[in-house]
Amino acid sequence: MHKFDVIIIGAGSAGLSALREVRKRTDNFVVINDGPWGTTCARVGCMPSKLLIEAANAFYRRTSFDEFGITGADQLKLDDTKALQRLRRLRDDFVTSTLKITNDLGERAISGRARILSPDQVMVNGKKLYTHKIIIATGSRPVIPQDWPNLGKRLLTTDTLFELATLPQSMAVIGMGPVGLEMAQALSRLGVRVTGFGSRSFIGGISDPLINQTAVKLLSEEFPLHLGGRASVVLNSDNVITVRIENIEVEVDSVLAALGRQPNVDGMGLDTLGVPLDDRGLPSVNPITLQIADLPVFLAGDANKRLPLLHEAADDGHIAGLNTTEAELICFKRRVPLAIVFNDPNIAMVGQSYRSLEHESIQMGEVSFTNQGRARSAQSNRGALRVYAAASDGRLLGAEMCAPAGEHFAHLLALAIDQSLNVWDLLRIPFYHPVLEEGLRTALRDLSSKLPACSQSDLAACGPFNSEALD
Amino acid sequence: MHKFDVIIIGAGSAGLSALREVRKRTDNFVVINDGPWGTTCARVGCMPSKLLIEAANAFYRRTSFDEFGITGADQLKLDDTKALQRLRRLRDDFVTSTLKITNDLGERAISGRARILSPDQVMVNGKKLYTHKIIIATGSRPVIPQDWPNLGKRLLTTDTLFELATLPQSMAVIGMGPVGLEMAQALSRLGVRVTGFGSRSFIGGISDPLINQTAVKLLSEEFPLHLGGRASVVLNSDNVITVRIENIEVEVDSVLAALGRQPNVDGMGLDTLGVPLDDRGLPSVNPITLQIADLPVFLAGDANKRLPLLHEAADDGHIAGLNTTEAELICFKRRVPLAIVFNDPNIAMVGQSYRSLEHESIQMGEVSFTNQGRARSAQSNRGALRVYAAASDGRLLGAEMCAPAGEHFAHLLALAIDQSLNVWDLLRIPFYHPVLEEGLRTALRDLSSKLPACSQSDLAACGPFNSEALD
Repeated sequence: MHKFDVIIIGAGSAGLSALREVRKRTDNFVVINDGPWGTTCARVGCMPSKLLIEAANAFYRRTSFDEFGITGADQLKLDDTKALQRLRRLRDDFVTSTLKITNDLGERAISGRARILSPDQVMVNGKKLYTHKIIIATGSRPVIPQDWPNLGKRLLTTDTLFELATLPQSMAVIGMGPVGLEMAQALSRLGVRVTGFGSRSFIGGISDPLINQTAVKLLSEEFPLHLGGRASVVLNSDNVITVRIENIEVEVDSVLAALGRQPNVDGMGLDTLGVPLDDRGLPSVNPITLQIADLPVFLAGDANKRLPLLHEAADDGHIAGLNTTEAELICFKRRVPLAIVFNDPNIAMVGQSYRSLEHESIQMGEVSFTNQGRARSAQSNRGALRVYAAASDGRLLGAEMCAPAGEHFAHLLALAIDQSLNVWDLLRIPFYHPVLEEGLRTALRDLSSKLPACSQSDLAACGPFNSEALD
Repeated sequence: MHKFDVIIIGAGSAGLSALREVRKRTDNFVVINDGPWGTTCARVGCMPSKLLIEAANAFYRRTSFDEFGITGADQLKLDDTKALQRLRRLRDDFVTSTLKITNDLGERAISGRARILSPDQVMVNGKKLYTHKIIIATGSRPVIPQDWPNLGKRLLTTDTLFELATLPQSMAVIGMGPVGLEMAQALSRLGVRVTGFGSRSFIGGISDPLINQTAVKLLSEEFPLHLGGRASVVLNSDNVITVRIENIEVEVDSVLAALGRQPNVDGMGLDTLGVPLDDRGLPSVNPITLQIADLPVFLAGDANKRLPLLHEAADDGHIAGLNTTEAELICFKRRVPLAIVFNDPNIAMVGQSYRSLEHESIQMGEVSFTNQGRARSAQSNRGALRVYAAASDGRLLGAEMCAPAGEHFAHLLALAIDQSLNVWDLLRIPFYHPVLEEGLRTALRDLSSKLPACSQSDLAACGPFNSEALD
């Protein structure tokens, strides 16, 4: 009886990242994948959504042309067929590059649906495989409420949206999390009559009320946004789709369900592991080893329902790949939390969220971009940013923003937070002129002015760092 | 006889920044300014140039429209009169906000040309003023070669360019430093037939041959660029302007002189200070105190010919303002060097330049953006970046780039360099997907792979940071 060192179930971002570590240490493994090979990210996630957004933002730029002195913007039209063809052409390229990773695996790559029989047995295509370790990285799929009527092809998810030959005239986007927000704005900018519906009053993963208010206001200027109630979807007798929330009723051509993703673990035998499962059928997982209880089974990527983000899935894969092939179990410090929503302006949350902070022990600095010089020159002067620090010593804890270049600020702040820097450390870098980062600096100075240490550190905060007099 | 604590000569960025510190500590000062009040930055520098660039890039975006599926781009026209009007409208706003700083000074703000008579005497408008300290912050003006013919209004500098009612048909931009490069590309994108001339083979302040080659190649695709010889300007008998370099001869409607800036110190009496002056008429200045010799005279901003950059001028002003009003002379650590050229893609240099490094003791990592995913999706996949680290321990020393979002990478790298971080520290931050920073990560991983420490730090470099096994 052959016994594998590792069976990796799922060849998405987490599985492929696990594979990279596993194959460095053993040849005695298989990768099992159900359905199309290629990652959620490349096939139906990060990449096609960004391609839609780039086309949408390019088309939307015409609204700034008159102010810049450019005439003829009203002659611009979107050829949605062509736009979607480009999206799929590049998407296919991105998918192909992920396929290269498994193409040379030969018999060690198995297409089929895996079912775990026990912590050392996996059934696939009617065959029983024995293994020392298992990595479950089966990914996730969009949630569709069971009580919705059958809308056929008029019900879209990110699995089907990017396959459309042309765009519908009107659409309800239900769910105003990151994916819903990105797609609602992009589709609206591409000319679809979009209505957004969100059950909570907070959108896009924001938890800071000021930032949420800013984002809601800015997005509402582009498409109607109905928040704070559960939308119901009705298919009338004349085959018209109506979406309702409280006393609002909107007729639409199609519905995009953007209600989050659920792990692909149903029917795969997690119940045979002998550990408790939650109501989603998931066992609890140690976030710094990814081990399930003390079993030789590891749960990585979207499937563990921790954070459905590419960079976290890739990290998960590395962790699981190492912890199935190294002699000793390794505990990992996870990265600084970072979430970016690629709306315009960008939405981003880095470090500790507003909601998670103890507000009596922090101070906040904020900036509006309405009068920020560089942003005004680019007609992108919309948005706000708030940054949080420990009141005792000014150590940076987190930030939330709906701001131009927010995706870039978030990386800068992630480094500052990872290095446990304080607000004066960050103020010591050169802020070139004129850059959008000067807006971030305004928020940092605002924060600095509220901290007791400010009077002693004024130079570090507002001018060059003084190495002799103030250290 | 009244004796002032401080006389500030010049109310530009450095002078205003000095003023902010001085007025916190004394009321017994005057500010003397010759010519129009308002800063070089707001009037004729950073801000109007960025306004021209934003209009130019907006208009240039039409070249990507066909690929995105947007039709009608050929109907877009530039109304240059309107574009320049917007530029001046916003420029005037920026100038107004700098004027606010001096508006309430009353008699402490003097319009006139100052002349230093001795380290404690300044003559202005025929009146002799006595003072304990002097801050010279008289700024700079564009260099115009003395051997050029008189071109009248057809000779432009950044002092006159932004005053044009309409754009010329054709222009020679002479000088391919930061200002020349920015204006040449912007004017070209606005439809002016631009020819660029640079005396050196390196452009825009780049010193890394790979990055320079990348920038030259990309810019040459937009307008002809003649490098490596001194351009001569000839006014023919029929009043036609010809610009020549070796066997190249170009007829142009006008010439933009972008040959750098010279300090405004002529005739202001620096010779009365009793210290040696160089061939530009400048005394040597201590860069960390800005003091001239041991005199009570400080030289700040563009006038000291150190770094003609807004953020350095502002720092200079703070230093001079403090060192004229604090009891003891303070030495300042200057910020990490940072230079950004706002071309597309951005050119940026941060930390130690390629040229200044000892190449036997460093390693370099590089990335091309040609295949970078996010850049491809936005049709901005052009450029390259190179990052330098100490070969012994991977400490980040500097980077040069001609890359999309380079202005943002430069700030992130400035923080890493200021904090003396190594390549693995920077790789430990989350790189969200898909962002342009993933391109920077590719360069960092390339660098990491060349460092001896890599094998021990592989996890920090390539995956999540391992806090237990590897620390």
